Amino acid sequence: MTEIKKIITGVDEVVFPQHGDDRGELVAIEGMKDVDFDIKRIYYVFATGSNAIRGKHAHKDIKQVLLCVRGSCDILVDNGRDRKTVKLNQPNKGLYIHGFIWRELMNFTEDAVVLAVVDKSYDKDDYIFDYGLVK
Amino acid sequence: MTEIKKIITGVDEVVFPQHGDDRGELVAIEGMKDVDFDIKRIYYVFATGSNAIRGKHAHKDIKQVLLCVRGSCDILVDNGRDRKTVKLNQPNKGLYIHGFIWRELMNFTEDAVVLAVVDKSYDKDDYIFDYGLVK
Repeated sequence: MTEIKKIITGVDEVVFPQHGDDRGELVAIEGMKDVDFDIKRIYYVFATGSNAIRGKHAHKDIKQVLLCVRGSCDILVDNGRDRKTVKLNQPNKGLYIHGFIWRELMNFTEDAVVLAVVDKSYDKDDYIFDYGLVK
Repeated sequence: MTEIKKIITGVDEVVFPQHGDDRGELVAIEGMKDVDFDIKRIYYVFATGSNAIRGKHAHKDIKQVLLCVRGSCDILVDNGRDRKTVKLNQPNKGLYIHGFIWRELMNFTEDAVVLAVVDKSYDKDDYIFDYGLVK
């Protein structure tokens, strides 16, 4: 089972089971089983500068899990009332963002690979770049 | 558009568009858009020993894309008539396996992270561990 811990309203920390043996480690995420949505798309970011800040936007209606499957980074999440920063530094630990949440990703290690598992198609009109609208 | 090159019958090399800017790089894969199936699950393998061989099985009826999103590894694919080994060494280049294909993954670098994007739920009965059945 996936472990879940609330960070702020709209954001949970999730830890997926890690299947290890003498060959190495494996983490699997299946739609409607390990996450409560069908996986419509994934994306991954890499070769991110250590001073770069990614994100800096919110979505009104997207569910996604963000994982740092290699290296580490920090993710700031803010629902307009509460704001927290979480370090992602183990491959099976992610943030499940399922509300109207402002997010910023920063402090990437050189080798960091962030993987996002998302419930909806890409829609550029769904991005909200004005923090003042988050509440 | 995704570039496609046939490796053997049932296996294509695919190169996904990479979106880079001054923050870093991003690759997105959306079901029924960048791949010709709905994404039912993903999995990723890491911390794999350099002498380990993963895979060593076939599936009768699964479509999946294997990518090495960090580091590199070699993937051997065999459809019973033709056999080829492909090095995956760039984050946006993958193998699309969509036939009855024996596969072995090997020569992992210490930092390698292999990501699989799959069209079906996990089913242990779908694994074929007898190479003699592949044809």
